[in-house]
Amino acid sequence: MEKLKTKKTFKKFTYKKSNELFERAVEVIPNGIYGHFSPAPLVPVSAYPFYIESAKGSRITDVDGNEFIDYMCGYGPMVAGYKNPIIEKAVMDQYQKVDTVTGAPEVMVELAEELVNTITIADWAFFAKNGNDVTSYALMAAREHTQRKKVIRLKGGYHGTHPWTQSPDHPGIMFDDAENIIMGKWNDIDDLKRIIKENKNEIAGLISSPYHHTIFFDNEMPDDGYWQEVEKICREEGIVLIIDEVRTGFRININGANETFGFKPDLICYSKAMANGYPISALVGTNEIKSSVSKVFYTGSFWFSAVPMVASLETIKYLKANNGVEKMHQYGKKMEAGLVQLANKHGYDLKVTGHPAMPYYRITDDSTLKLHQKWCAECTQRGAYFTSHHNWFMSTAHTEEDLKLTLDIAEDAFHALKS
Amino acid sequence: MEKLKTKKTFKKFTYKKSNELFERAVEVIPNGIYGHFSPAPLVPVSAYPFYIESAKGSRITDVDGNEFIDYMCGYGPMVAGYKNPIIEKAVMDQYQKVDTVTGAPEVMVELAEELVNTITIADWAFFAKNGNDVTSYALMAAREHTQRKKVIRLKGGYHGTHPWTQSPDHPGIMFDDAENIIMGKWNDIDDLKRIIKENKNEIAGLISSPYHHTIFFDNEMPDDGYWQEVEKICREEGIVLIIDEVRTGFRININGANETFGFKPDLICYSKAMANGYPISALVGTNEIKSSVSKVFYTGSFWFSAVPMVASLETIKYLKANNGVEKMHQYGKKMEAGLVQLANKHGYDLKVTGHPAMPYYRITDDSTLKLHQKWCAECTQRGAYFTSHHNWFMSTAHTEEDLKLTLDIAEDAFHALKS
Repeated sequence: MEKLKTKKTFKKFTYKKSNELFERAVEVIPNGIYGHFSPAPLVPVSAYPFYIESAKGSRITDVDGNEFIDYMCGYGPMVAGYKNPIIEKAVMDQYQKVDTVTGAPEVMVELAEELVNTITIADWAFFAKNGNDVTSYALMAAREHTQRKKVIRLKGGYHGTHPWTQSPDHPGIMFDDAENIIMGKWNDIDDLKRIIKENKNEIAGLISSPYHHTIFFDNEMPDDGYWQEVEKICREEGIVLIIDEVRTGFRININGANETFGFKPDLICYSKAMANGYPISALVGTNEIKSSVSKVFYTGSFWFSAVPMVASLETIKYLKANNGVEKMHQYGKKMEAGLVQLANKHGYDLKVTGHPAMPYYRITDDSTLKLHQKWCAECTQRGAYFTSHHNWFMSTAHTEEDLKLTLDIAEDAFHALKS
Repeated sequence: MEKLKTKKTFKKFTYKKSNELFERAVEVIPNGIYGHFSPAPLVPVSAYPFYIESAKGSRITDVDGNEFIDYMCGYGPMVAGYKNPIIEKAVMDQYQKVDTVTGAPEVMVELAEELVNTITIADWAFFAKNGNDVTSYALMAAREHTQRKKVIRLKGGYHGTHPWTQSPDHPGIMFDDAENIIMGKWNDIDDLKRIIKENKNEIAGLISSPYHHTIFFDNEMPDDGYWQEVEKICREEGIVLIIDEVRTGFRININGANETFGFKPDLICYSKAMANGYPISALVGTNEIKSSVSKVFYTGSFWFSAVPMVASLETIKYLKANNGVEKMHQYGKKMEAGLVQLANKHGYDLKVTGHPAMPYYRITDDSTLKLHQKWCAECTQRGAYFTSHHNWFMSTAHTEEDLKLTLDIAEDAFHALKS
């Protein structure tokens, strides 16, 4: 059994201070930690830290002093390394001048110009704070542009947590919130045609991610010709085609994921990775819809702050100058090859779906996900932060050393599955 | 005419670079600058700068090098001075450790505890990014808590720009967006009773600012007994009482503006001033509604970032340690006395409404607002940044020197009205 010998064994992390903080938190915060940072989908929860103390490059250190290679990257925002010195230099220079103030910053114009020069379909950019700020604005713009009400979104898609993005049976959501939302199916042209036929001249827009990255399930790429057919139908029917790149943006294709898949939407929503962790989102679009967008009133207290705009400008420049997207792809591919090989060696089938820069991993040998959850937890507790329900995220800061350590950890975790 | 002699005359600012930037902006950004930062309500627009280059204390400097005493404070967020050294020290220390990352920061617990200790009604706090994030969340929480749909909001009130906050005849807004919103009237108990009678057992919540700070109009304080009667009715009818303190928060009363007016809401929405310009918002509430809030799923990519939470914790501590709210009141009162006296001296009636820390000024001698607009513009162009449509904001950084300069500018501007 020479081949099954683990190169290295790891001491499992414990989380005393994280748990103490969480106990304090539940007293004064609903659920202690909520939303997508909720511990609920982290199974078993005892394998995960809740509170992070510091971060640098690809590594994060929790409040108990445990260090992890971070494969969640803040659930997407970190793309060029925590405390990236080039981005941070520009950010700190801006900080010394101004952030939130009574007026817009000069960099707002430069950032819009950079996005227009970078994103192929973009003739303009509009800035907000949350991803959901701009997915909602895209719907409002589509409604104004078409003077129609209904919007198609796809089952399993995620566009935020505003009422229209949630199922009407969720707590706090009314049936009325979704009455103009029609649920379609990913990769299903016949279903799209049926919906349009049943709602002739009533569909304002279709919103979708560029590929299907659902949580808890294998991610799905578009079928050949899918997006071309969707685009053609939207053009024929006067439907505004909205792509939600909040999760995929600046990781799949610097010019827009649609360029990879060969189609042109009217509007694209960005946030997360666009500023390497600083809070900003953007809606970009074509000149055809600009006057309609201009009519819709939309604003927020911190939407004109300078620092996140500088961070975004520098992040995009950094990714371009360092071939960042390709670098993430290469790292993702190498990690996939290494982990799949290790899984095979230990008798498991590790399935990898989605894009190499944000893959969804799943051990298929147990359809309940329990085996996969246990493996992810064992990896996390040894220093490779893996979630079992969500796609992971690569960054330009992940190194060959990280890869080697990740594979060593993964192998020790495969052993642990059998113990 | 000795008494009318101006102490000092001022050279009027011009805005060459601001205008050049704006010309570039309209090419790549819908409306160039949008939302509440839009130049549209700044009349005449030629009197105002659009782009700000730097800020310190109470002063801002635009891209043309003109310096202003800032009486808008970023439309509210700045409360303790731009680049407040005490707050900035803590922020920069946190910056070196971590901001947005794969997990919550320890300070999230401390900030929630500080809010619970500071805001009288608060048993818990929930953090988001925009003011509208939490006004919308409050509605969802009220609906879950009561299992009812309808919400009362008041004409002239502002709770953000999500569809439910806008009039259904606005571009991009559907009638359907507001079908569960019932418009009431400020300071009108009979109107409230009528609405409740017509919608018996159907009202989930009532949302209102603690006093009526409408734009373009004199602000209105609550009538004696108004809030006590509203609270009583809400209790009897099982209606969740939601106070929107996004604009008033930490300027009227550090423990909640409701304490000043003598009543207890169930939920309070905060943002703007709570972190001296860093992007964060909070919903706080009572234990009675905590389990309902906990059921409603709501999140955003940057809602767990550490830096704005540190900034908020330090801002609240700073305001407490320096008697900040009282300081702003005193400054506001002195400025009001000085400006009203000057106005009288020059033959104008300058009416001041709202709260001294965020007063709305209006020259009443011309009902079209044009005279008032001209005076505000003349002041701005001399270095006291006054808007004519919106309440102003005081901060703890405004000094006696600022006051003296403001009065000198105001007098020169009164002279200019006659030229």
